[in-house]
Amino acid sequence: MAVGIPPSLEAPEVAGFKLSTAACGIKANGKQDLLLVRMEPAASVAGVFTRNQVVAAPVQLCRDRLSEQTARGLLVNSGNANACNGPQGMLDALALSHAVSDALNAPDDHVFVSSTGVIGEALPVEKPLAVIKEMAIKAKSASWDQAAKAIMTTDTFPKVESRIIATPEGDANIVGIAKGAGMIHPNMATLLVYLFTDATVAAPALQTMLKRAMTNSFNSITVDGDTSTNDTVLLFASGAAGLPEITDADHPSAKPVADAINEICQALAHWIIKDAEGATKFISVTVSGARSVSDAKQIAMTVAKSPLVKTACYGNDPNWGRILAAVGYAEVPLDVDAVDIFLGDVQIVSKGGRAGRYTEQAGKAVMQKEEIAIHINLNLGDAHHTVWTSDLSQGYVSINADYRT
Amino acid sequence: MAVGIPPSLEAPEVAGFKLSTAACGIKANGKQDLLLVRMEPAASVAGVFTRNQVVAAPVQLCRDRLSEQTARGLLVNSGNANACNGPQGMLDALALSHAVSDALNAPDDHVFVSSTGVIGEALPVEKPLAVIKEMAIKAKSASWDQAAKAIMTTDTFPKVESRIIATPEGDANIVGIAKGAGMIHPNMATLLVYLFTDATVAAPALQTMLKRAMTNSFNSITVDGDTSTNDTVLLFASGAAGLPEITDADHPSAKPVADAINEICQALAHWIIKDAEGATKFISVTVSGARSVSDAKQIAMTVAKSPLVKTACYGNDPNWGRILAAVGYAEVPLDVDAVDIFLGDVQIVSKGGRAGRYTEQAGKAVMQKEEIAIHINLNLGDAHHTVWTSDLSQGYVSINADYRT
Repeated sequence: MAVGIPPSLEAPEVAGFKLSTAACGIKANGKQDLLLVRMEPAASVAGVFTRNQVVAAPVQLCRDRLSEQTARGLLVNSGNANACNGPQGMLDALALSHAVSDALNAPDDHVFVSSTGVIGEALPVEKPLAVIKEMAIKAKSASWDQAAKAIMTTDTFPKVESRIIATPEGDANIVGIAKGAGMIHPNMATLLVYLFTDATVAAPALQTMLKRAMTNSFNSITVDGDTSTNDTVLLFASGAAGLPEITDADHPSAKPVADAINEICQALAHWIIKDAEGATKFISVTVSGARSVSDAKQIAMTVAKSPLVKTACYGNDPNWGRILAAVGYAEVPLDVDAVDIFLGDVQIVSKGGRAGRYTEQAGKAVMQKEEIAIHINLNLGDAHHTVWTSDLSQGYVSINADYRT
Repeated sequence: MAVGIPPSLEAPEVAGFKLSTAACGIKANGKQDLLLVRMEPAASVAGVFTRNQVVAAPVQLCRDRLSEQTARGLLVNSGNANACNGPQGMLDALALSHAVSDALNAPDDHVFVSSTGVIGEALPVEKPLAVIKEMAIKAKSASWDQAAKAIMTTDTFPKVESRIIATPEGDANIVGIAKGAGMIHPNMATLLVYLFTDATVAAPALQTMLKRAMTNSFNSITVDGDTSTNDTVLLFASGAAGLPEITDADHPSAKPVADAINEICQALAHWIIKDAEGATKFISVTVSGARSVSDAKQIAMTVAKSPLVKTACYGNDPNWGRILAAVGYAEVPLDVDAVDIFLGDVQIVSKGGRAGRYTEQAGKAVMQKEEIAIHINLNLGDAHHTVWTSDLSQGYVSINADYRT
């Protein structure tokens, strides 16, 4: 299941990045399971990672290497997460990284590696090791759809977004690929996102831009509230478009790049929700009239995580009592008698009670759509925030309970 | 669906309490929907209520009247929650309470009322009002099974527990009834629990005992993390057994009563989980070796709420990676490399990784049982806590998405 149609895959070449994919045999079904990205010249790099305390070896490696601010290569395998494998996990991640640095004639510390898939099973490291050298030789520009496919687990379509960054000095390109809420036994959903631009951005400014882009994208989506051991977002800037360097994320010249990063992150985040396990609905939850953005986000996340709200969306049920109740237990001080709630354009709650003109029929008409907008106005202040989620369907339970049977 | 068999319903008479039930027509299907309890002599009373900020009118009324410390009557209706009905909700609750106080010749403030069922629809108050007087006349001792049935919504069996309180001065009785995770459109699960004892306990001591009993019962269970607008636990002590009065919850003489309250609350909490919507498994999650009880509880609750852990239990999948990942995102500082996890007697995780002797077959054998014990030892300290939950099944989604179709 998925909501909406896959995005267009006609993403442009991004100067400085060459891609190669392979089916090295980690996935038993023979599908593509390895992506190598060569970077020439060396790119500046930024990254954000899972907040889970249980962290896969490749995430530890990437975190450490971020201080180098420089990347020459990226290797991503799907089919095995290399998580919870003890000291061997790090040895395997280092072996992969070393094979890449060797093939690219680059320092070890300038190679980034990611894994997604089964956790707690040893990575069959000999399989990727056998093909890395050949992949490095064959790498070519712009096969973004292939790259996005090679990092998929149970995603039903590859996720690619691109933008042209127009600046007074000329254009640059930026492409992002992502994999989302996929499940491979015995694993949890893992989010992997990689962005590549040929703009020129110093690593500290790049890091600031990437962190800011999280707020209204990957940090504002939820499928089931579970946080993976492997979540990784990396952003590489080659500078190969030959534009002036951006060294300050707050300088006006940074805005076109920052806007493009924000847009791509938000678009990819939406695709991940639309392809969430079992999703039949794409739901936005906006809280406005809050005293602070963090209040607004806390309430929006509470509503978006509520299994009762999510099953109501699945069942086309305009169940405003469940929405109001979730607002009430979000642990943000409220004036319940001031709360208004809208489903799409239909007001369902006015001043904390059923809206006078509301009819069940009008509410149901909104809930039957594939995209549902829930808007909660607290009428307490000026702050607002939006989060995105999927519904909770029979399909979600099937995927996560019956995967192996 | 439900786990296990319904409890025995042969609960004893409790001196001072007389019961009456009726089918007054709030439930469209003609089932019992009204319970009246007469209390003579006046009972001391204690109560705890939902922490949701959106609170039904009868809950507000009960909260206010708790300061009176005295009860003469209790009226509970099922089929309509009288929540989110604006000022009319409180007028209706007061009308019901007044009819009861009139029928019992008691002060208004000594009557407690509860409602559970549909929210946001006006209570058809004329229906209960028409039968209250007759119910008061017909009230008799010990029809606890009927009482438990009259407060049910989508519970599949009535929940009654009783204990004999043995003291050096003689015996007293205590009976508890509860309704659990039931769903009536457009409502959320609501927990209602009433305990009745003929021991003699002053209201402040009774309140302390009841609050303490929550810790290892109703505050340690979770079905879906949603908190109702109507949750209510009330405890009445008539003193009609003629035993010496307990005025201090910490006095040794209080222990037999406190133990019985604790046991009944825990037993009823377990029945509520076993009868949770769609439940096919009864799952206990114990965290030991924590630095504090609150740390242990936070981790246990995070694991118990995880949709990925709950669907794995439904699917008989010994998915230790999901358990470990949930421990990791509970936001309690950990030494991941010290964590041990057991499924029943089978160790699945040792020092943060897959246990050496663990076999999938052994894990699966535990997961196929109706009752699953998950034990997580953090190996950091001496504190521990246990919570109870149900699995997340196709049935849960059906009940909550398709209720009206």
